[in-house]
Amino acid sequence: MREFALIDEIRSRVSNTRDDVVLGIGDDAAILAPRPGHELVVSTDTLVSGVHFPPNTAAFDVGWKALAVNLSDLAAMGAEPAWVTLALTLPEGSPEWPLAFVDGFAALAAEHRVALVGGDTTRGPLAITVAVHGFVPRGTALRRDGASAGDAIFVSGTLGDAAAGLAVVLADAFASRPERAALRARLDRPTPRVALGLALRGVASACIDVSDGLAADLGHVARRSGVGATVDVDALPASDALRACADPDRRRDWQLRGGDDYELCFTVPDDRVADAERAAAQAGVPIARIGTVTKRPGLVDAGGDALAPDRAGWDHFA
Amino acid sequence: MREFALIDEIRSRVSNTRDDVVLGIGDDAAILAPRPGHELVVSTDTLVSGVHFPPNTAAFDVGWKALAVNLSDLAAMGAEPAWVTLALTLPEGSPEWPLAFVDGFAALAAEHRVALVGGDTTRGPLAITVAVHGFVPRGTALRRDGASAGDAIFVSGTLGDAAAGLAVVLADAFASRPERAALRARLDRPTPRVALGLALRGVASACIDVSDGLAADLGHVARRSGVGATVDVDALPASDALRACADPDRRRDWQLRGGDDYELCFTVPDDRVADAERAAAQAGVPIARIGTVTKRPGLVDAGGDALAPDRAGWDHFA
Repeated sequence: MREFALIDEIRSRVSNTRDDVVLGIGDDAAILAPRPGHELVVSTDTLVSGVHFPPNTAAFDVGWKALAVNLSDLAAMGAEPAWVTLALTLPEGSPEWPLAFVDGFAALAAEHRVALVGGDTTRGPLAITVAVHGFVPRGTALRRDGASAGDAIFVSGTLGDAAAGLAVVLADAFASRPERAALRARLDRPTPRVALGLALRGVASACIDVSDGLAADLGHVARRSGVGATVDVDALPASDALRACADPDRRRDWQLRGGDDYELCFTVPDDRVADAERAAAQAGVPIARIGTVTKRPGLVDAGGDALAPDRAGWDHFA
Repeated sequence: MREFALIDEIRSRVSNTRDDVVLGIGDDAAILAPRPGHELVVSTDTLVSGVHFPPNTAAFDVGWKALAVNLSDLAAMGAEPAWVTLALTLPEGSPEWPLAFVDGFAALAAEHRVALVGGDTTRGPLAITVAVHGFVPRGTALRRDGASAGDAIFVSGTLGDAAAGLAVVLADAFASRPERAALRARLDRPTPRVALGLALRGVASACIDVSDGLAADLGHVARRSGVGATVDVDALPASDALRACADPDRRRDWQLRGGDDYELCFTVPDDRVADAERAAAQAGVPIARIGTVTKRPGLVDAGGDALAPDRAGWDHFA
């Protein structure tokens, strides 16, 4: 399939009904109408085959994940998604792969009313770069640098599932367990916590998405905020699937250091904890309190032992 | 060099002094302040080694070109560049290559006061994706769909040099000629015509940048505008270097069908031709009148023979 034919096909599969798209795909650039009184929030992430997803991942799931990891960055800022660009580098091959990819991308885009406003398709080793754009009312974005000593630390959903899913793919782990598919689905088709991010505006003091692993990502918040954290490792939320498959040591390691969960980790001033719990309930996302922000730098567990990740983050599975 | 160290190095080399960057690199996303009364113009382009630039291209030049081809899209819209994101996929290797790359990128960014507001570095086969953001006063963007029968057609600078430069690289062409370096420089370090694009707002009826070759790109304008064009092939501008190296047939083919020149091709209503010439003079960019927009679809030369590109565009050197 030639470049122009593929772009036409992509345009026909991704609907773009947003009033703020003045001119979409088809010119040298898109023309967009930013929302008055709002700031624009922009992030970009690349997915490389064999680095960010196993090469045998279904094309639909790669498309989904490419958008999901970018929407997750907007979620962590409390931003409402609006527009996205997609740069797709594809090896020679049948058009089935890119079309299934686009279907996965389009399914998640439709769920969040995101318009595809620009793209580029090139030939080369499989890689996808997405740039995503969203809005926050001026001054309300959730940042990494707002945590203060005494704030409560929360995390959404469950941790460690994606790392367990990766073990399923790479090491054929838990061969006899029925939970394998559920764990792999958490790796391949993450859920960006957009509604939770929106609900936490004006409530959370700092926020980040858990892409590199909780210890690494909470470490980013702590460093940027000039604080530290005590983490109650026993309070880290785990799915039933993870509990059923992994022994406690392995589970805890994945919950602390596994990447690709795309949950939100956020801090809340002590007097806003009830508001945060209400906001999460409204967003329909379970949250768990996992620790407290401390004046003293560094991450420690409830016993005071250092929680420094033994690797500086997930760094994917390279 | 680890990912975080490289990002720090990039941040230190690309200056980001713009009032409209509320929060730059270092959080989950950038926070940006769009300009009131303006529309946002967004484009993205990927460069893959061996597809969009010869593998032996100097790292500095790859960095320059990665930004230049994106700024060229903004130029074609008449937009003023503001912000850029950079997704860099790098094979394992010494940090010298990425740092020289960033220097080339930063040199052009500084020239256009573009702030690097987001990025991602990943390991994998060398590829670069840039998303660029600029502004136009509401309703003033130059588009492809505004050409009308009778409009004059212009092109900036000279055409065919980059194709000749590619022949130098790939086929060791013009072995004895001193102009080789100049031709290769046009391939490796294109000049985005940003000032010309700005000057043409309110004057040009349609505009595109010449990335796929004049015939292909003017064809895009004609199709989107529902018109055709007569092109005076003898009027296509050529550099002295190209004239010195290439015989007339080859030269004409490159001028019509060679890609990567990143000049602007634009149409101007007959009664605004003097304004266009004045605007180009003010922007300091030579322009040449190369033809006329026709009611009848299709591209023909002055003798009425079809000018359909024998390939559907440059499609790079794949």
